[in-house]
Amino acid sequence: MVKIVIDMMGGDNGSKATVGGVLKFLNKVNDCEVIAVGNPDELKKLEGKCQIIPSSEVVPMECSAMEAMRKKESSVYKAVSAVLSEQADAVVSAGSTGAFLSLSTLLLKKIEGISRPALITPFPTKVDGKYVVLLDVGASSENNANELYQFAKMGEAYYRVVYGKDDLNTYLISNGSEEGKGTPLSREAFDLLKADPNFKGYIEGRYVFGGDADVVVFDGFTGNVFLKGSEGLAKMLGGMMKDAFTANLSSKIGWLFAKRGFKKMLDKMDYKKVGGALLLGVNAISVKAHGNSNEDSFYHSIMIAYTLAKGQVVDQIKESLKSEN
Amino acid sequence: MVKIVIDMMGGDNGSKATVGGVLKFLNKVNDCEVIAVGNPDELKKLEGKCQIIPSSEVVPMECSAMEAMRKKESSVYKAVSAVLSEQADAVVSAGSTGAFLSLSTLLLKKIEGISRPALITPFPTKVDGKYVVLLDVGASSENNANELYQFAKMGEAYYRVVYGKDDLNTYLISNGSEEGKGTPLSREAFDLLKADPNFKGYIEGRYVFGGDADVVVFDGFTGNVFLKGSEGLAKMLGGMMKDAFTANLSSKIGWLFAKRGFKKMLDKMDYKKVGGALLLGVNAISVKAHGNSNEDSFYHSIMIAYTLAKGQVVDQIKESLKSEN
Repeated sequence: MVKIVIDMMGGDNGSKATVGGVLKFLNKVNDCEVIAVGNPDELKKLEGKCQIIPSSEVVPMECSAMEAMRKKESSVYKAVSAVLSEQADAVVSAGSTGAFLSLSTLLLKKIEGISRPALITPFPTKVDGKYVVLLDVGASSENNANELYQFAKMGEAYYRVVYGKDDLNTYLISNGSEEGKGTPLSREAFDLLKADPNFKGYIEGRYVFGGDADVVVFDGFTGNVFLKGSEGLAKMLGGMMKDAFTANLSSKIGWLFAKRGFKKMLDKMDYKKVGGALLLGVNAISVKAHGNSNEDSFYHSIMIAYTLAKGQVVDQIKESLKSEN
Repeated sequence: MVKIVIDMMGGDNGSKATVGGVLKFLNKVNDCEVIAVGNPDELKKLEGKCQIIPSSEVVPMECSAMEAMRKKESSVYKAVSAVLSEQADAVVSAGSTGAFLSLSTLLLKKIEGISRPALITPFPTKVDGKYVVLLDVGASSENNANELYQFAKMGEAYYRVVYGKDDLNTYLISNGSEEGKGTPLSREAFDLLKADPNFKGYIEGRYVFGGDADVVVFDGFTGNVFLKGSEGLAKMLGGMMKDAFTANLSSKIGWLFAKRGFKKMLDKMDYKKVGGALLLGVNAISVKAHGNSNEDSFYHSIMIAYTLAKGQVVDQIKESLKSEN
């Protein structure tokens, strides 16, 4: 049976969002044990439904790795530790990204052979229902070619488990599609990646969301800049669309007529359904839900953790490293 | 009097788009001399209105620097050369980016003291009428800290001339906003940039379009990935919006009611008004219009060249380098 530990206190909405998310998850899935870490007073609705580990201290959203390691009574510290003591498969938190990622790396430790863990996130594409996964989007700020190669392998393991597709299109981001483009780092990684039958070459930024790519590999700095830029731009355009539909009485009426047509677009771009980012390359599944998660998005984050645990993504990554040697 | 040379043959629409663009420009502006380079048979409408340099060879859209240098009879080669022979201030082309940029660099030569030219492009922001300029978006694929510093100075010169604003908010792209974030390159550039009173620190990808930043400095690789990603995403979202408005009869009626409200958004996101990208750091203004330019967007590209020539942006850049020493 899959076992998932959940930090109930992190995130902008605290236990209000997480409790509802856990309840929704427990209603849907019955072959998973949930361990909830948080203030018992706020978790009464979960009593009898799952194990509760008491903790009422919350780390602030802006929290350094050092600070996170010192706050041993915090819900996020206790949650990540519980993965080890309870032999759980996964941990989920909507709290401080910095704290959660550094605790996941320091306590869960890297998978043997993995040089650096990577933060991976799915993004919708032009093609309905098709996602592309991007990694690393910010666990590191510098990488070498071997790390980029490992990111490709980890991204592929993730894609297979989550989307059930075997032959993949893996690309390396670059400033042009021809071999020889890019930085010395890209060119070195390109050469290593030729050994990967899924590797299809370089991809330019403009084609990342085109629907052809399954996995796109970035160094952590470029990936972070790219993902945050895309999120910022999508948010800006969404805001402009909202303004356009509320600009005057006529456009408000327009919305009434058009909204059914827009449902698909809004659904597709609803990042809450994507469930946040995930740290790959440590010895358990570590899902970072969005800081402003509501019940629904937190439920999706737990669901991702469950899917990956059930699909044994950590073992898949270990396996893919073995086949290298 | 400002003098602008125009490659009439480049771009997907060839002289059909460029002739109309030039005519529109000549109707609006009367203190500028235009030199049109192209097949005289296709430029009959310009006879008597401007000087014509005959050339009927067109370089293909995918063209290497070497190839571009060899094709001395091509319209783009002749156009860039004419900047020197005719003592013109600016050159505009909608043709092959690679050919135009390498010819501009090789023939016009870098401004003394400038280590690398940079490709700069404006992008709309959340704030109405406010643009942010991004550079380098792909003239180089690797840069050192001093080059990033020079990009900031060149971007500021551009912003002042085009948007007439003196005190600027210049940022350096990074994976976090606190000093100490980023790569060794970002940190070294950050230290150099402290000497620039306009420098406001690091900016994350998500805030680039927020309206606060005037100039955002990237290394050429990251800038290229970021810009192309943003263009690709904007295009995808635009396509989804169009699909949503044509999904069914009801949404088509919705469009009739809403379109006035959407005018502002569509205007803002119309990249054709932006006029393309520009190579800064060479001894003339070199404007790369969009490959698929129509009359209107080509007109805007000439207008940008004219504005920058009148504002003597090349001299401004020279001046800003002098004040360093």
